[in-house]
Amino acid sequence: MQMSKRISSFQASPIRRLVPYSREAESKGIHVIHLNIGQPDILSPSEAFDAVRNFEGDLIPYGLSEGESDLRHALLRYYRSYGIEGLDEDNILITTGGSEAIQFAFMTLCDPYDEFIIPEPFYTNVATFAAIAMVNLVPVSSKIEDGFKLPPISEFESRITKKTMGILLCSPNNPTGHIYTEPELRELLELCKKHDIFLVVDEVYREFCYDGRSFTSILSFPEYADRVICVDSFSKRFSMCGARVGAIVTRNREVLENAMKLAQARLCPPMVEQKIAVAALNAPKEYVENVRLEYENRRNHLIKALQRIPGVRCAMPKGAFYFVADLPVDDAEKFAIFMLRDFNYKGSTVMFAPAEDFYVTKGLGRTQARIAYVLKIEELETAAICLEEGLKAYRRNVMHIHD
Amino acid sequence: MQMSKRISSFQASPIRRLVPYSREAESKGIHVIHLNIGQPDILSPSEAFDAVRNFEGDLIPYGLSEGESDLRHALLRYYRSYGIEGLDEDNILITTGGSEAIQFAFMTLCDPYDEFIIPEPFYTNVATFAAIAMVNLVPVSSKIEDGFKLPPISEFESRITKKTMGILLCSPNNPTGHIYTEPELRELLELCKKHDIFLVVDEVYREFCYDGRSFTSILSFPEYADRVICVDSFSKRFSMCGARVGAIVTRNREVLENAMKLAQARLCPPMVEQKIAVAALNAPKEYVENVRLEYENRRNHLIKALQRIPGVRCAMPKGAFYFVADLPVDDAEKFAIFMLRDFNYKGSTVMFAPAEDFYVTKGLGRTQARIAYVLKIEELETAAICLEEGLKAYRRNVMHIHD
Repeated sequence: MQMSKRISSFQASPIRRLVPYSREAESKGIHVIHLNIGQPDILSPSEAFDAVRNFEGDLIPYGLSEGESDLRHALLRYYRSYGIEGLDEDNILITTGGSEAIQFAFMTLCDPYDEFIIPEPFYTNVATFAAIAMVNLVPVSSKIEDGFKLPPISEFESRITKKTMGILLCSPNNPTGHIYTEPELRELLELCKKHDIFLVVDEVYREFCYDGRSFTSILSFPEYADRVICVDSFSKRFSMCGARVGAIVTRNREVLENAMKLAQARLCPPMVEQKIAVAALNAPKEYVENVRLEYENRRNHLIKALQRIPGVRCAMPKGAFYFVADLPVDDAEKFAIFMLRDFNYKGSTVMFAPAEDFYVTKGLGRTQARIAYVLKIEELETAAICLEEGLKAYRRNVMHIHD
Repeated sequence: MQMSKRISSFQASPIRRLVPYSREAESKGIHVIHLNIGQPDILSPSEAFDAVRNFEGDLIPYGLSEGESDLRHALLRYYRSYGIEGLDEDNILITTGGSEAIQFAFMTLCDPYDEFIIPEPFYTNVATFAAIAMVNLVPVSSKIEDGFKLPPISEFESRITKKTMGILLCSPNNPTGHIYTEPELRELLELCKKHDIFLVVDEVYREFCYDGRSFTSILSFPEYADRVICVDSFSKRFSMCGARVGAIVTRNREVLENAMKLAQARLCPPMVEQKIAVAALNAPKEYVENVRLEYENRRNHLIKALQRIPGVRCAMPKGAFYFVADLPVDDAEKFAIFMLRDFNYKGSTVMFAPAEDFYVTKGLGRTQARIAYVLKIEELETAAICLEEGLKAYRRNVMHIHD
């Protein structure tokens, strides 16, 4: 039957499309170590579950389209605790996860065929959200050999056309772990001001900055308030990825008014999960601090273990809980399938996300993998061994290279 | 600043855009009776809250993009209990509410500027979902004087062009209360087959059929399986509108594969609320039967009370929990604002949804209101008195008519 040509051009998520292979491996009794997805194994704040278990009410009514007031206030207190001042409740629109916040940003700012500039590699689902809004993503490549640092501002400027509506960043970055510094953000904001475009920053990994680095939120530049949109979510910092609650935060009233049309159409964000988010935000701040220390430790172990593997290149990531590694293979996706379908080492194997779809520019990232380090250190060490053995087997048996 | 022209053309929800007026009235101590929104006051099945309060787990992980297996199986059992056979788990994609299911249907079936035929008046947020997907809604008008019955098939056929991808129905209907009969559905399916297009039916009010009427699901026509998509949700039948869980159900594999691309991008539906939906689906069937009886009783009271008001026209609705009434006013939205801003009767007033935006055809529905009867009978009777007095006051003071 005739169907949408548009949807046929959408990519299947490279993070999720290998799932059938991992299920198949698991059904054969193989232990699959999931480095492919940012699914933390750390416990959520216990306060979050108290909120669930003490749930009051005899029905679950619709909430406000803009999100519940107690959640917006809890978020304001949280921002203040991170030194972000001068926001009020009306600057916050609660969304169904950070995913919806990104979609609202595209739909609110762009007409079909408008453009958004984005450093690549980037969180791959953004490509689908852009495709839904018919927005063209224009990449500026960051390079593994430079530690994925911000490309020169001139490269951003050279991409600006009449159709450019904004620049989208993720900081700390998924997938590279880069953290945009205060001077970098200021330089980008100046560029946005010069060309009258928006800067949208996904800050869902805000807390996860390592080696004593501080974090600069895009919300800390009130002088650029009109052109700044922050995407937020509670998934990662509180280990509650399945609770679909996020936010779009901006001081630009027109953006919020237009986003509200989208919010009203879908009625309200999940009500029970908003209560969970309130409780998590009100948990003691040490919770997140401890989680950060744990991820930092995991990062150190995994990076060290991978850097020992011949041919593997990966820079020390500064934040978030991912990094991109270059592997000594012809095609990282083929190797990922090999690892799941044709390989195990002492009953274990590793699943990772091939990084090619994190790039728009064809040919980039073909040999790269996005790796998440949200598992326990023993698991990560087993993963490193599996990866080393898997690389040997793949190079020998598939690439016919005898090292 | 430059922003999307597309979003500027989106309507604000007529169901929700009057909320500032009702808040203002409530802040002045006026009791606002909400006939504007389908927010049931009936308790959810107690089993649903047991699921919340006995929640197990120490974190909330991502779920499957297609929804949790236990929920899909609970839904299959539920369909079988309604005589819908021959479905399997793979025919079900769990969504974030029925809202997301409708969006997935448009995005999956249509390219920009494709068309969907829809009987008007229709659930107004569909217009926003169509606008997001850049789908043009082509209306076929159903008329209050005919009890909003299905317009002649020839009218549907006359709207079919090369760009038509399908017909969208809601049965039992929001806002009219009409229930499409088995012969009506079959006639539409034949038309769809003849022109090789889809039939999408929103069945979220499936249980609410009154006066002993039976319900025919679009899923009961396996011979048309390839062109049938059912939109479902648990919001209404279990009084859990704030738990954002719904489903898209179809035997067409290609539709599901394409919808999965959208589902994967937004990761998963709300996990805690999926557990609540499982528990609600597993509650004894008498729960829904009792709810149906209660709504039937409320409908009878409110319709009788409104039919006594001079100049008000409303036909007895057959299902769902809404109807459209024609009011003796110049403009139902102006009257709605008057009721909230300038009127109260003994401290109470009524909020309803002006029906004009439930139509695409300009000029239709200007004097009509969508009324939901999900409140207790005493409230509904007070509402009828307020409406009668409000109409008198509006006609006298605003329209300068002295009856």
